[in-house]
Amino acid sequence: MDTYEELMEVYKDISIIGEIGSQLSWDQNTYMPKKAAAMRGGQGAFLSKLFHRKITDPKVGKLISTLEGENLDQNKNAVVREIRRIYDRKTSIPEELEAEIASLEPLSMQTWVEAKKKGDFKIFAPHLEKMLELKKEYADKVGYPNIPYDALLEDFEPYTRTSQVTEVFERLRKKLVPIIETIVSSGKEIISFSGNYPIASQEEYYKKILTDMGYDFEGGRLDPTEHPFTIGSGDDTRITTHYYENDPRPALFSCIHEGGHALYEQGFLREHMHSPLGEFCSLGIHESQSRMWENIIGRSLPFWKHYYPGMKNAFPSLSSMDLDTFYRAINQVRPSLIRVEADEATYNLHILIRFEIEIDIFNGKLDVNEIPQAWNDKYEQYLGIRPENDGVGCLQDVHWSMGAFGYFPTYSLGNLYSSQFFDRMTKDIDVKDLMGRGELRPILSWLRTNIHHRGKLYPASELVKVVTGRSLNEDHFIEHLKSKYGKIYDVSF
Amino acid sequence: MDTYEELMEVYKDISIIGEIGSQLSWDQNTYMPKKAAAMRGGQGAFLSKLFHRKITDPKVGKLISTLEGENLDQNKNAVVREIRRIYDRKTSIPEELEAEIASLEPLSMQTWVEAKKKGDFKIFAPHLEKMLELKKEYADKVGYPNIPYDALLEDFEPYTRTSQVTEVFERLRKKLVPIIETIVSSGKEIISFSGNYPIASQEEYYKKILTDMGYDFEGGRLDPTEHPFTIGSGDDTRITTHYYENDPRPALFSCIHEGGHALYEQGFLREHMHSPLGEFCSLGIHESQSRMWENIIGRSLPFWKHYYPGMKNAFPSLSSMDLDTFYRAINQVRPSLIRVEADEATYNLHILIRFEIEIDIFNGKLDVNEIPQAWNDKYEQYLGIRPENDGVGCLQDVHWSMGAFGYFPTYSLGNLYSSQFFDRMTKDIDVKDLMGRGELRPILSWLRTNIHHRGKLYPASELVKVVTGRSLNEDHFIEHLKSKYGKIYDVSF
Repeated sequence: MDTYEELMEVYKDISIIGEIGSQLSWDQNTYMPKKAAAMRGGQGAFLSKLFHRKITDPKVGKLISTLEGENLDQNKNAVVREIRRIYDRKTSIPEELEAEIASLEPLSMQTWVEAKKKGDFKIFAPHLEKMLELKKEYADKVGYPNIPYDALLEDFEPYTRTSQVTEVFERLRKKLVPIIETIVSSGKEIISFSGNYPIASQEEYYKKILTDMGYDFEGGRLDPTEHPFTIGSGDDTRITTHYYENDPRPALFSCIHEGGHALYEQGFLREHMHSPLGEFCSLGIHESQSRMWENIIGRSLPFWKHYYPGMKNAFPSLSSMDLDTFYRAINQVRPSLIRVEADEATYNLHILIRFEIEIDIFNGKLDVNEIPQAWNDKYEQYLGIRPENDGVGCLQDVHWSMGAFGYFPTYSLGNLYSSQFFDRMTKDIDVKDLMGRGELRPILSWLRTNIHHRGKLYPASELVKVVTGRSLNEDHFIEHLKSKYGKIYDVSF
Repeated sequence: MDTYEELMEVYKDISIIGEIGSQLSWDQNTYMPKKAAAMRGGQGAFLSKLFHRKITDPKVGKLISTLEGENLDQNKNAVVREIRRIYDRKTSIPEELEAEIASLEPLSMQTWVEAKKKGDFKIFAPHLEKMLELKKEYADKVGYPNIPYDALLEDFEPYTRTSQVTEVFERLRKKLVPIIETIVSSGKEIISFSGNYPIASQEEYYKKILTDMGYDFEGGRLDPTEHPFTIGSGDDTRITTHYYENDPRPALFSCIHEGGHALYEQGFLREHMHSPLGEFCSLGIHESQSRMWENIIGRSLPFWKHYYPGMKNAFPSLSSMDLDTFYRAINQVRPSLIRVEADEATYNLHILIRFEIEIDIFNGKLDVNEIPQAWNDKYEQYLGIRPENDGVGCLQDVHWSMGAFGYFPTYSLGNLYSSQFFDRMTKDIDVKDLMGRGELRPILSWLRTNIHHRGKLYPASELVKVVTGRSLNEDHFIEHLKSKYGKIYDVSF
């Protein structure tokens, strides 16, 4: 066995540990008996420890160093670069610090749930304080090029620096705020749904859409859960959704959204299994897949020209709603307090607010107890609304309680990347025509070739250049919003 | 950390690897996507290797030896004895041999499926030959007190020797054959079921029975699968069943049977988690739990005096069937070819035949190609019927294709143990009265105290002595059959 093969043997084990962890996590969120939580915790801790030991084995460091001195091809180079990245990060974090963060999580999350319910940030503040302290120590241990936040962002959006995100988000905000103001002041009515949408019918029709998209149900499945998610990879990529009987939209769009994530995971080349080349590039790129399917394709007029007859057929309650009304009903822009319920335009302001606050925290400009005030001020400034309590304000998301700082920006990066990719795709294939005929496979083929098959070959910032010829930017996303919502709201920007 | 604690730390990891394996196996048999099979195979192989490495670590051997020189209490003694047993077996088997057996399995099982379908043993013979060769090598490697079969039996029924089983099975056969002959010649009619038994109603009513038995649904669940099974332990013990809409019996009795297994697994003391004291004693003892609930309790008249009104209420198709007819319908003795469909009396002859053939094979008295003839002759001799082809003869069970020689006898040992335990129980509590009132919890309490809480404290042969005061024997089982079926068939034995 040569050095490269030896490294791949180790990585295979690491990768399988990840697969097993995914399966346990799927079970935990779907069918696990209530009382099994403690046992599952022990299993998770065991796998984490095993993963840590495997990747930080000094033998791995030697294999990497040897390979770095060799003249490798592009694929192998990317593999070694990625394993080096994980190795360096994991070896620089003391096991005790990782354990301390992991052990803080359950209590922190539990306190967050209570604080959110009571709408009172003060209850959660001490745990957030502690979590921030540990994550600052974490950032110091792994190191960072410019500011501590770089180290956290790196966990979710590798090779992307805070400064790059700040720059593009600043421009995005300046363009986005007036667009939303124009839409809101157009004064169009809100369209609501009435009637009943049986869960069995929803499941059946959304499975049809997922199948049309190319989701392989023989290598996946759809189950109901409290919060929708995608888990697994390759031939075992599962998705979940949450059905509401009085509104078909949440499950419809979460199915398409998770379907987009799942197509990415199912789309890696099987020859790259158990290699970084068979893994997603970054969370931003992952999100670009889900958001392209959900928003650009799944909320487009051509898509619904094809699918609305089937939708009406599935749900008698839609019989009196025409296509145009339905299209407007699934594309309503209005400032709101809750991120996960936000439309594709205002959504990004929710993200920018969190990103700005996270940076201020890690730069020492904002104390924990100042978060609610800063949060509420920004909501008022960017969206024109102010949360009545912290439960619908700075306590609404679970991320901070888990110590996942640096995660939020990837959602908006996903929106920007998706528009850039989609713009490029329209130059290669007639997407509008395909959507109008319900022929979604050529879209998937384009994504497979340009994005999925490349795995982690390039960092996200390079991938977008290789695919589109341009760096990360907000232009196409803004253009998409202007063109789409100009028509829907009969306004010009 | 003292030596004992150090050993328990290792055992905890081993135990958690087992838990994870169970979870993956549950998923594989319930909801796993079809194409995920190869990935799951890789995960299983990874866990097996990990298990092997952990238990055969020379450090473990040293810890055991040190502890064997110490003056330990009864509990710790049992723990060290059990870990020694696994350590010795696993260290004596070359990793390559284990891998060769594991890698033969899928093809062997696949060929068995084909051979069974075609009813032609010759298709399967070469794979069985190879499997036997490997298992003989396996027996030689692990060693045995008297004959090679002892080594195989030890995997499923530790500390029990082939000679002990042979002795009791010989007596059992001699008493059983005339009992069955008497029943058959009584000429009672066969009662069949008509009508429809909706799956939802079956699930609801059987869940009620399981809850009455004491099965904790907060630490378990019931799912439909091709073949019923129980998996997991402690707070995550899951069961499955297979529903038939035209007959309520298969799911009913498999629920009660698997419920019996599950109560054992849920019944270990939580303080013994991740210790051999929190594990089942042997497969025979495990089977004694499932068979006591299924046959002695679940097919008894007092039980149905209480439950039949609810059963009739759940299934309108039963409205014209009275209790006595139902009771006879669930207790029909008739020689048949298929083990898994056999009644509680003839069932044991199916086992004895397999046991005798297995022994002859491993003693070199029977060649692989002679198996069908020997099988068919024994069916004719013991049960008075002869299989028309090997599909309903020596190919009916999966066990041999997996290399599980030595497994079959544990089914009948379970029947014998269950009657011995039940006889003892009736001296402590008024079981008949309790069943008649649907108060099953005191029965469970008795099993908890006498069997479940003891885990692997004693070998099976000792446990039965501690609990009942007598060694393994067939008397109570034969007595149970005579007393029950004498009344049902109006015969005397």
